[in-house]
This record gives sequence, C-alpha cells and structure tokens, in this order.
Amino acid sequence: MKLYSFAPATNAQRVLMFVAEKEIDLPVVEVNVREGALFEPSYLAMNPFSVVPFLELDDGTCIGESVAICRYLEELYPNPPLCGVTAKDRALVEMWNRRIEIDGFMPVVHALRNVSPGFKGRVVPGTRTELPQSGAITERGKAQFGILIDRLDGQLRQNAFVAGERFTIADITGYFMVETARRIDLDLSEHYSNVLRWYNTVASRASVPR
Amino acid sequence: MKLYSFAPATNAQRVLMFVAEKEIDLPVVEVNVREGALFEPSYLAMNPFSVVPFLELDDGTCIGESVAICRYLEELYPNPPLCGVTAKDRALVEMWNRRIEIDGFMPVVHALRNVSPGFKGRVVPGTRTELPQSGAITERGKAQFGILIDRLDGQLRQNAFVAGERFTIADITGYFMVETARRIDLDLSEHYSNVLRWYNTVASRASVPR
Repeated sequence: MKLYSFAPATNAQRVLMFVAEKEIDLPVVEVNVREGALFEPSYLAMNPFSVVPFLELDDGTCIGESVAICRYLEELYPNPPLCGVTAKDRALVEMWNRRIEIDGFMPVVHALRNVSPGFKGRVVPGTRTELPQSGAITERGKAQFGILIDRLDGQLRQNAFVAGERFTIADITGYFMVETARRIDLDLSEHYSNVLRWYNTVASRASVPR
Repeated sequence: MKLYSFAPATNAQRVLMFVAEKEIDLPVVEVNVREGALFEPSYLAMNPFSVVPFLELDDGTCIGESVAICRYLEELYPNPPLCGVTAKDRALVEMWNRRIEIDGFMPVVHALRNVSPGFKGRVVPGTRTELPQSGAITERGKAQFGILIDRLDGQLRQNAFVAGERFTIADITGYFMVETARRIDLDLSEHYSNVLRWYNTVASRASVPR
C-alpha cells in the first residue's frame, strides 16, 4: 500500500495528519504535481481525476478522495478511532466533518484558487482549464466561511473538539480549513474565542505536517 | 426515530430514495421550510444549521447532513447494502459518491441557487442572507458540471453503475445531480450515451420520489 502525495497540497496534508495520528507506517510517493505529472498516462490510469492524494493498494486498486482514504485506513487500523466509536457517534462525526468541509473548507479552497496567482489556469482541482479566476467566487467563499466559523464557535463553546469530547477527523478538516483561510488573510479565529482555543490545541499536536 | 424533511428539497429526496431502497418504515415530519420554520427556536435547538433533512433519534439526538443520515441507516439496516460490502468496496463507493457530490452535485446546486428567482435571499443553504445571486457562480457551476459529466461518462462506459456493478448511494447522488442540472437547462446526458443509459436505469427505479 502506497500513498501518492504532494507535500504542499492541503488534501494530502489532511491524510498525512490522519496517518500520523494513527502512527501508520505508510510509504509515501511524492508526485511532481507542478510539472503536470498527474496528466501523464501512467497517472491518468491510476486516477483519472488527476488530484492527490490517492492510495494504491497492493492489488493495484487506487482509492482517491481524502475522506475515502481516511475511512479505509480507519477500517484497517481502528485505533485510535478518528471517525467515531458507536453508530451514533460515527454519524455525528460524519455530520460535523461534512459541515466543516462543505460549508467552510471547500468555500475557502475555491476562494484561494480564484485569487492566488499560483492557481491561475487551475481554478478547478485536477483540471487544466481556461476558466478564469473569479473575484465573485472568492468573495462568496469568504462570506460562507464567516457563516460557518460563527456556527462552529457555538459548537466549540460547549465541546472540546468539533464533534464532541474526542479528537476526530472533523478536527483535522477544521484545522486545514483555518490554515487555508489564513492564506487569503482570513483569520476569524481571533474574533471567535472558542475557535481560537480549539485551533491552538489542534495546532500543537505532533501529527500536524511540518 | 423520525426524519424531518421538505418534499421539494433535493437533499431530503436523496435520503427518501435511500430509505425507499432499503424499505425502511421511517416516520417523516414535513417542515414548513418556505415559511421559515427552520429558524424558529424549537428547530434551531434541533439543527442550528437550519437545513433539512435531519434525523431525530429516540434519545433526542439529531443527525444532520444527508450522507451522515444514510450511513447511520446503513448501519442499522445493512440490507440491501448501498454503501459497499467490503472495506475496499466501501472505500470505492465513498470515493465515487464524493466525486459526484463535490465535483458535480454541489456545483449545480450553487448554480441553481444563484440564478433561480425562488432562491433569492437564500443563496447559501440554511441561511437568511443579504448575499446577492451571482452569475459568475452559476457559470462556474455549469462548467464544473461539464467536466464531471465527461469523466463520469468514461466510468459508466465500463460499469453499470457509478461505483461498479452494484447500485449504491453514489447513483442516488448522481441521479439528483442530473435532476438539479435539468432545472437550469443543463441536460448533458443526451451528449453522453453512457450517462444517458445509466440515468434512464436509475430514473426507472421504484424508489425515486414522485
């Protein structure tokens, strides 16, 4: 089993942090994403969606999508549990991971891709496209992040971590949401004391990719 | 256990189709979403994200997010399996469900919300906001849908269903992606013969909400 990764890619970092939390000894192949390696035939055959990370199993099957990879690893290496312990607990972790990802993480990723010079010609992940960067998408992404972080602060007022008293995959997603937001000069955590307390706790974990 | 729903809401329909496939006898509470019921204190206490669907368990716990609800129901009612059977299979279903949802379904949902008069003042799900509708977001959503449907046609050239030979949650997500796209006059399935064959197969299932 091998993980295909690209060190600066946020979604790769999400999986690497998950792997580090579980102390899994997983070989990592660094892909030359900036030079277009993912569009070469050998990589297209493995992952036609042309993004990292993806996991190649020993039988050649390739699993893409960060959360799909993490869930697979959770089944193989259940401890420490990062996706919940009981059925109800798993549902609540999934709910919070999705809220963070859909309402906050993805909006800031799109905001970043539509404003950062480095993402020109790559506004849609895994494509080489003529689509232009769009200020309207960046502004909307920032607004959506603001709505999410306000709701998240309410949740963290009563809970140590995003999905309750235990550190989970939802905290990893949330951490990288804030990190991405900081790249476009959004650091609302200062205005939200509960988010800030939680963020500092997560940022100090040994599993954070350096 | 009760499902809070709103018949015209696509995400509610996704869960209702999942429930119908499993033939689960689940009481459904219809919420008066158009008149703002989700922003009343009693509903905010159940789901501060103010969206349907959500599932209320007998102990009062509320589980939001369509896929979190479906996964919970899959654990309680494993047959027929709609989220995969083995660990590898579950990973591939999750991968495909996410690709469809993130790369196609969400872009067309945002495209629709930013152009349809009925979504004025509600461009971000679960909010009452001053954010304006944006033509740039609609155009980007349509472009992303075009990229996804092209890739999906390649997958369906070799597979009966989105994630392989078995009908899964990824087909439900895909079906509602196409349905949403049709509401903004995007029906690329006609130009993609494999997508069209698959779409017609799914559309004929008895579980499709009518």
